[in-house]
Amino acid sequence: MKITRGFTSHPAGSVLVEFGQTRVMCTASVTEGVPPWRRDSGLGWLTAEYAMLPAATHTRSGRESVKGKVGGRTQEISRLIGRSLRACIDLAALGENTIAIDCDVLQADGGTRTASITGAYVALSDAVTYLAARGKLADPQPISCMIAAVSVGVVDGRVRLDLPYEEDSRAEVDMNVVATDTGTLVEIQGTGEGATFPRSTLDKMLDSALLGCDEIFAIQRAALALPYPGPLPEPTGKR
Amino acid sequence: MKITRGFTSHPAGSVLVEFGQTRVMCTASVTEGVPPWRRDSGLGWLTAEYAMLPAATHTRSGRESVKGKVGGRTQEISRLIGRSLRACIDLAALGENTIAIDCDVLQADGGTRTASITGAYVALSDAVTYLAARGKLADPQPISCMIAAVSVGVVDGRVRLDLPYEEDSRAEVDMNVVATDTGTLVEIQGTGEGATFPRSTLDKMLDSALLGCDEIFAIQRAALALPYPGPLPEPTGKR
Amino acid sequence: MKITRGFTSHPAGSVLVEFGQTRVMCTASVTEGVPPWRRDSGLGWLTAEYAMLPAATHTRSGRESVKGKVGGRTQEISRLIGRSLRACIDLAALGENTIAIDCDVLQADGGTRTASITGAYVALSDAVTYLAARGKLADPQPISCMIAAVSVGVVDGRVRLDLPYEEDSRAEVDMNVVATDTGTLVEIQGTGEGATFPRSTLDKMLDSALLGCDEIFAIQRAALALPYPGPLPEPTGKR
Amino acid sequence: MKITRGFTSHPAGSVLVEFGQTRVMCTASVTEGVPPWRRDSGLGWLTAEYAMLPAATHTRSGRESVKGKVGGRTQEISRLIGRSLRACIDLAALGENTIAIDCDVLQADGGTRTASITGAYVALSDAVTYLAARGKLADPQPISCMIAAVSVGVVDGRVRLDLPYEEDSRAEVDMNVVATDTGTLVEIQGTGEGATFPRSTLDKMLDSALLGCDEIFAIQRAALALPYPGPLPEPTGKR
Amino acid sequence: MKITRGFTSHPAGSVLVEFGQTRVMCTASVTEGVPPWRRDSGLGWLTAEYAMLPAATHTRSGRESVKGKVGGRTQEISRLIGRSLRACIDLAALGENTIAIDCDVLQADGGTRTASITGAYVALSDAVTYLAARGKLADPQPISCMIAAVSVGVVDGRVRLDLPYEEDSRAEVDMNVVATDTGTLVEIQGTGEGATFPRSTLDKMLDSALLGCDEIFAIQRAALALPYPGPLPEPTGKR
Amino acid sequence: MKITRGFTSHPAGSVLVEFGQTRVMCTASVTEGVPPWRRDSGLGWLTAEYAMLPAATHTRSGRESVKGKVGGRTQEISRLIGRSLRACIDLAALGENTIAIDCDVLQADGGTRTASITGAYVALSDAVTYLAARGKLADPQPISCMIAAVSVGVVDGRVRLDLPYEEDSRAEVDMNVVATDTGTLVEIQGTGEGATFPRSTLDKMLDSALLGCDEIFAIQRAALALPYPGPLPEPTGKR
Repeated sequence: MKITRGFTSHPAGSVLVEFGQTRVMCTASVTEGVPPWRRDSGLGWLTAEYAMLPAATHTRSGRESVKGKVGGRTQEISRLIGRSLRACIDLAALGENTIAIDCDVLQADGGTRTASITGAYVALSDAVTYLAARGKLADPQPISCMIAAVSVGVVDGRVRLDLPYEEDSRAEVDMNVVATDTGTLVEIQGTGEGATFPRSTLDKMLDSALLGCDEIFAIQRAALALPYPGPLPEPTGKR
Repeated sequence: MKITRGFTSHPAGSVLVEFGQTRVMCTASVTEGVPPWRRDSGLGWLTAEYAMLPAATHTRSGRESVKGKVGGRTQEISRLIGRSLRACIDLAALGENTIAIDCDVLQADGGTRTASITGAYVALSDAVTYLAARGKLADPQPISCMIAAVSVGVVDGRVRLDLPYEEDSRAEVDMNVVATDTGTLVEIQGTGEGATFPRSTLDKMLDSALLGCDEIFAIQRAALALPYPGPLPEPTGKR
Repeated sequence: MKITRGFTSHPAGSVLVEFGQTRVMCTASVTEGVPPWRRDSGLGWLTAEYAMLPAATHTRSGRESVKGKVGGRTQEISRLIGRSLRACIDLAALGENTIAIDCDVLQADGGTRTASITGAYVALSDAVTYLAARGKLADPQPISCMIAAVSVGVVDGRVRLDLPYEEDSRAEVDMNVVATDTGTLVEIQGTGEGATFPRSTLDKMLDSALLGCDEIFAIQRAALALPYPGPLPEPTGKR
Repeated sequence: MKITRGFTSHPAGSVLVEFGQTRVMCTASVTEGVPPWRRDSGLGWLTAEYAMLPAATHTRSGRESVKGKVGGRTQEISRLIGRSLRACIDLAALGENTIAIDCDVLQADGGTRTASITGAYVALSDAVTYLAARGKLADPQPISCMIAAVSVGVVDGRVRLDLPYEEDSRAEVDMNVVATDTGTLVEIQGTGEGATFPRSTLDKMLDSALLGCDEIFAIQRAALALPYPGPLPEPTGKR
Repeated sequence: MKITRGFTSHPAGSVLVEFGQTRVMCTASVTEGVPPWRRDSGLGWLTAEYAMLPAATHTRSGRESVKGKVGGRTQEISRLIGRSLRACIDLAALGENTIAIDCDVLQADGGTRTASITGAYVALSDAVTYLAARGKLADPQPISCMIAAVSVGVVDGRVRLDLPYEEDSRAEVDMNVVATDTGTLVEIQGTGEGATFPRSTLDKMLDSALLGCDEIFAIQRAALALPYPGPLPEPTGKR
Repeated sequence: MKITRGFTSHPAGSVLVEFGQTRVMCTASVTEGVPPWRRDSGLGWLTAEYAMLPAATHTRSGRESVKGKVGGRTQEISRLIGRSLRACIDLAALGENTIAIDCDVLQADGGTRTASITGAYVALSDAVTYLAARGKLADPQPISCMIAAVSVGVVDGRVRLDLPYEEDSRAEVDMNVVATDTGTLVEIQGTGEGATFPRSTLDKMLDSALLGCDEIFAIQRAALALPYPGPLPEPTGKR
């Protein structure tokens, strides 16, 4: 797994995350204002959109803009990414600003939703640095913990982390776990794919997932140890 | 909780499920043919659609047909219901026929997705009886187990089953569990609502959910002990 | 024919109307504000939406939300219901509030549009009681007359009231009449179905329709003689 | 009122109908094949679409293609035109071909729907001549009667035919009548506009409407007395 | 080529332009206000929409409103018309008002986009006269030059102006030129249709196009030499 | 300018093109079959879709899939890319297969449409190599010439090649030229941006554009001199 910050230069945070053959561009853009239902609350908002480029998959898939509607899978993943990242950030600190997360899959080979969450956390972290440097945050440390995600599957009876597409598509059980570096869970989704599974399998998958997340936190930390990949305003005496 | 079979008379299975103030009409309609991507496979299909009537909620919500698109939450739940029921039925036994499950929420007060799965299982069971009586099944017992679902929440630090809306909306963790009467899991989805949760909470919620499912299986069994609520063709000697 | 008030509890008016095998849930929800084109007029508004649940018909019909557009028949009936009810209510008395009528057909067997109007009148009446009890009305009696509707058809040369679907679909002429209990007409729509008809037939159909409406007014009156089916605020001395 | 045949030259029938300031281009295009639900029936089909050009109204109205959906009024009128014309033609005579009627309002000043039906009848008649000349009809006279339509309104208590927009918009009752030259009715739609009306008014409006239709039949007959406005194939001896 | 002003009477400018068999109704409607992104700028706006009536083409084409989306060709031409006309008008003179150009093709036989621009210029000119007479213009002469457009094609190796559809569809190169009567260019679009072309061909096409535009300017001038085709307010002494 | 082949590994051709700060991922995917209107012609097809990732621009732009429709600019550019590439390939050689070009802009800073065409040519070239190696081509050299595109602008009166966004947005004239390495033109589009331009400017822009294309052909040639970036089947003796 590899995380590249500053992959593009316009958004406040822009990360390329690579997980085996899977490659996702995760960006965090800051825009003024919040959605109508949140106006005049004094609170910020974080929203997320996930999409697959047409040529990202083994066989080209149609473009959702051309179809004129966003599919169920896309919406489900977009909602998952948004919920996961909102778990680590104090939206009150943003003021009435929105951070828009975009996860666009350039190449897919299994685990795109968990790679997206993992990369998006780093992009979000950069967007927060960007906002802090501009003096836009009410609280200079609005992020309370790190967020990472892994997928775990059972193939041929064995629990396996982050399956490539070829194996993932024949997994008997498929689970996505979003966790924090403080050892708690944010979201867990487990599905028997055309089968059901005992609770003992759930436990084994969870063990494996949490170990996997620990490895990812190390990679995220290493990536974030480097300086912010773009120009930041000079600190001034009295902001 | 109350399950009424034969709630309407056109579909092969029609069930009204009532869970506190929540009321969902769950139907199973049989149609000939399968979606294009499954044609000539010899296999049947089961699909599900969930929707909320506009006046089902405390405050009227806009109609998705008028908006011209199906929202993310609706799609997510529709997909969950479909996956859950496909876990218990042998689609090969249906031949190239489709069972369309519709879960329309007449009144909502928390737990509509789990009530929908629970009711839809009973409607599906009636549709299978209907198909069997018409000699349409390759295997007379295509259902391998019962399916039920419950929601569990943590409110004020306590694990609680099937919260009404007012409490659900302030739950700290929210989990939906779909299980079989053979003790296995079909799907588990747990989310920290603006917070994260330790693994010990997950375990407690799961204990509670599985006990809840056992109660539901008893209610489903009692409802299904009554005869099929509509006319069935006479058995004949030589079909 | 049977009218059940208080069928669900969230909307201000909620009625189940049953006409033979036809069953329609009619609700009247009160929302603050009016559509943009009516703002700052001081007048209220009444709008109506009709829809058929997918499993309501003999053969399951596709969901309009999934198709992404509302069909012509649905829009035509929605508009008819709205016009019919606006004929009996003084919108100035509502202030800038909107009453949204929803007629969702749970089971269809002919005459769903006239059943909808008939039931919606009762739901509207309850919504007015609800608004009056909250002191929201400029005029305590904004409803000037009762509204009911019937369908009349000619089958095999004979005029018949409220045909079930099987006969309705082979009617030679089909007419919907919306009338008031003061003996006047609100709307009349007559169509030769693949044929034409003489004016004498129109007259006979109208005779029959007006008699039918009188029976319905009696049923509506009996239903409305019962107290409002939910809690109302205590009357106070000085509102 | 004025009817111009051969207004454009591509469709089999193309008519400009002028009714006061109202001007509608009515065309009848012949296409091979029928909609999917009618295939292999041996029967033809007739469909109709009505639309208003954006600049046809006093104040420019938005284009429905840009809005992405067809409004309720447009659909209602399209359906009315289709039903009205199907009443006069034997669809079996067409074979599996479709006649598509298009009524596009170039300028609107009241009565556009009735002008559309009146003009569309003439365009249909030309399309039938065109098909007959090509030997495409099973029955050389598939049209059984003439069709015309008028609108009648009550303004200031007086019954009036074909009101211009300015008066139409303040009519107390508005009725559209579609009739045949054999004295029968095809469709009748009467609406109290924010008011209700006694049966005696209905009768007076109908008297007036039927007289109006007689005048229109004379104008249609005069227009159709001229030869077909385009080239027709030479009759041959042995088709 | 023929230009008829005052073709319809509601819009401020309404022109029928005829180019061989091609006939386009071009209107210019004035509406108060500007699009949201231009509000509070003090500047006006000019927008354009192009559409083909279904029966305008040799074979009937589907209605874009019914398809629910505007096709790429339609959007491309609409944008071209808007850009072309914005080149000749000082939008600051309009104040915060919008001129909406509509070009609806009644009959198509090649060159509909250039006919549209040519006719729309005349409609725009009338709309400006209308606004000036109402004292709505900050600058009485906001139009700086005339605008006309022609299409040029290469068929069988020869450069030809304004091809009818039958020849246009087999042109090897197709070019649209929008020019001003001051000898400058507004827009040039040249495409090899399944082939490529040398720069010398481009030069020849451009020579031909500019000569063609000169002829059109003469026709536009002749048409505009007549008085405004509708009533204008009386000039008053002191506006 | 930099061209990277083999940017992703699923599509037959995958190219990252970088032009200053502009970066576009251009892929060419091969799919069996052709659109319905081209079936049974024996000919292949080439189609193209262009899109901007939401975070590609200086300010985040909304996703077209979420808006539910493809904007005019997007459609215009998609059509241009498709036409441009179809000019260099013999579609008969492909048999009834489709090459789908996708140009997704990862970062935009002016000239995204011309960068897309330039990169897409290289991706197309790789897709042809891929098809040839699989023995799918009727003609082993279906590409007749190279295709490149540049944008030229006039800023402050001076002709300039490939302007970055900041200068492009204040250009007085903007022209896109698509040319072949045999010295001919494929497409030329020139627009005065709120102004008009003399023919002499057009000539100067064209001179500059053609020189620019020559530089690009050299870069394309250098990129294509490297071997195909993925595995190709072994040549066999007897295919």
